[in-house]
Amino acid sequence: MENGVDALLVTDLVNIRYLTGFTGSNAVLLVHSWDMRGAEERTVIGTDGRYSAQVAAQVPDLRAEIARATARRILELAGEWQLGRVGFESHVVTVAEHQSFVEQRTGLQLVPTNGLVEQLRMVKDAYEIAQLRAACAAADAGLASLLERGLLRPGRTERQVARDLEWAMFEHGAEAVSFETIVATGVNSAVPHHRPTGAVLATGDFVKLDFGAVVDGYHSDMTRTLVLGRPADWQREIYDLVARSQRAGREALKPGAGTSEVDAAARVVIEEAGYGPQFVHGLGHGVGLQIHEAPGVAKTSTGTLLAGVAVTVEPGVYLPGRGGVRIEDTLVVREAGPDLLTLTSKDLTVVE
Amino acid sequence: MENGVDALLVTDLVNIRYLTGFTGSNAVLLVHSWDMRGAEERTVIGTDGRYSAQVAAQVPDLRAEIARATARRILELAGEWQLGRVGFESHVVTVAEHQSFVEQRTGLQLVPTNGLVEQLRMVKDAYEIAQLRAACAAADAGLASLLERGLLRPGRTERQVARDLEWAMFEHGAEAVSFETIVATGVNSAVPHHRPTGAVLATGDFVKLDFGAVVDGYHSDMTRTLVLGRPADWQREIYDLVARSQRAGREALKPGAGTSEVDAAARVVIEEAGYGPQFVHGLGHGVGLQIHEAPGVAKTSTGTLLAGVAVTVEPGVYLPGRGGVRIEDTLVVREAGPDLLTLTSKDLTVVE
Repeated sequence: MENGVDALLVTDLVNIRYLTGFTGSNAVLLVHSWDMRGAEERTVIGTDGRYSAQVAAQVPDLRAEIARATARRILELAGEWQLGRVGFESHVVTVAEHQSFVEQRTGLQLVPTNGLVEQLRMVKDAYEIAQLRAACAAADAGLASLLERGLLRPGRTERQVARDLEWAMFEHGAEAVSFETIVATGVNSAVPHHRPTGAVLATGDFVKLDFGAVVDGYHSDMTRTLVLGRPADWQREIYDLVARSQRAGREALKPGAGTSEVDAAARVVIEEAGYGPQFVHGLGHGVGLQIHEAPGVAKTSTGTLLAGVAVTVEPGVYLPGRGGVRIEDTLVVREAGPDLLTLTSKDLTVVE
Repeated sequence: MENGVDALLVTDLVNIRYLTGFTGSNAVLLVHSWDMRGAEERTVIGTDGRYSAQVAAQVPDLRAEIARATARRILELAGEWQLGRVGFESHVVTVAEHQSFVEQRTGLQLVPTNGLVEQLRMVKDAYEIAQLRAACAAADAGLASLLERGLLRPGRTERQVARDLEWAMFEHGAEAVSFETIVATGVNSAVPHHRPTGAVLATGDFVKLDFGAVVDGYHSDMTRTLVLGRPADWQREIYDLVARSQRAGREALKPGAGTSEVDAAARVVIEEAGYGPQFVHGLGHGVGLQIHEAPGVAKTSTGTLLAGVAVTVEPGVYLPGRGGVRIEDTLVVREAGPDLLTLTSKDLTVVE
């Protein structure tokens, strides 16, 4: 156990899911340093009455405490067990929650920790990678089916296309969508995180699709930008530029590479073409049980990639009033070179 | 401005949407006491480069600051303006964020506040009620269409029914679903917050559907429990019991009523029938820009209803291993009696 704590109070629900498999909407987990006496029987998960059957089914190996004031009950137990230094997730616990912990006067010393479980979550094991691969496959198949059925064409609205794409992902094994699907046509494609509107797709438009599927809690993330009809020269130019940048970013994914170096490898391609100011966001992010998780892959990111880390690579160039291009894959860092999970072609797709 | 603060730093994104209309995923808002000199030009919204066009379009009347370290930049401005006592949302800001605010050494006095904007959000104005009504109508129409098309029938899975219901809500004007639709059949209906599985609907099952639609950010919430085929006596019995409890809860919704009294009005019906221990959750919750918001309506809730407050009323009885019933409406508290927004019949629907 890091930070010199004897136990860790985990209150982040995604971290709890990762550590125990519990998927309810209220839980508190107390994890022990395994060299402590009695650690096993004092690792306890708390939830409320709505989830008593679910916690027994999903977490059969741990003691479960059922209490409406869940965190209060778990801290009470930790106090009775005189656990001493108990870490809490300072990036999750609010100032008000912390105040209530303190006012409980358990005799415990509450020690701020930051991102301990998130660090563990960065490196995916084989099971997790299999789920990510399945999630990416559902997204690939969803897009393929959308295009095959001719559902992406001039005259349809962004909202219609978004719903059809989500529906197609469900048909291909998604249990949920990773986030609200982005469909951005024409000038809207220049808005990095556009929400689908009633805007009608028209010949000559860039159509940017940013979407993902969830399988067993694991999220995929992919962006493709297509053209309706014959691409104009400026469209080919920025598409090729973003594609080259994206390839450079993917090729920089290696165990030991600094995350800011990976960002730089892709960014320099766009900067050298004079579009640096039009690439307004970071290159990518970790992906797993959350759509955005550690590590960040941006100019200001710190830290180093390890084998097994899953990240997105998604450079973009946005020309307000004209249109924009983003190309994004989900990949796993490997010694032998990155494992590409999103398999849809990145050649400029022209929808006739 | 309450709590004796000169300005309030709002970091909760839903609160920011409520106050400004901004819907991006990163924002910080500094609001001033209006009796301060220069308050208007010192009310400022911060976001990052991804949202510069969006913030200009959605919040044309406020100064916008574009900065990657958004909160840092806004606090820097507040420090330059020597704002003195600045409230922060202690129920939103994490211990780690607060620490970073303190370490910025702005000379400001950071004062914890709790739920100031959430209090304002409780009472809905006419525009908000219109959006809630539209969201409830999309859910009503979605369920009606599901039933008309015969898509809820023995042999289909919970997951198929959930997706068809969500799809039908989209067809009827939903921009999103309020939460992952619950479809729970047979013994699964005894799990209060069951997630849809591959379980197959069978004759004799209770099927519990808990679902909602979002319109312009406002959420609807409704639960109906149906029976496939001829209901057994025990099914009629607990259905009628929950329906009576739900009616009692609705009838208790009045301006000035204590939220715990409303819970009690519904709960006593179930307790008197001997099923008190099988009603394992609170009676309801506020609903608006979030699916769960103030006020809570439960045994331990404090506070009093006001005209214009939107809440759910959703008692349930769950018999593990057999089945469960929940009936839920979304309503607005009014002087003249509650305004029912979810209009689907609450008679026991038998699907033949």
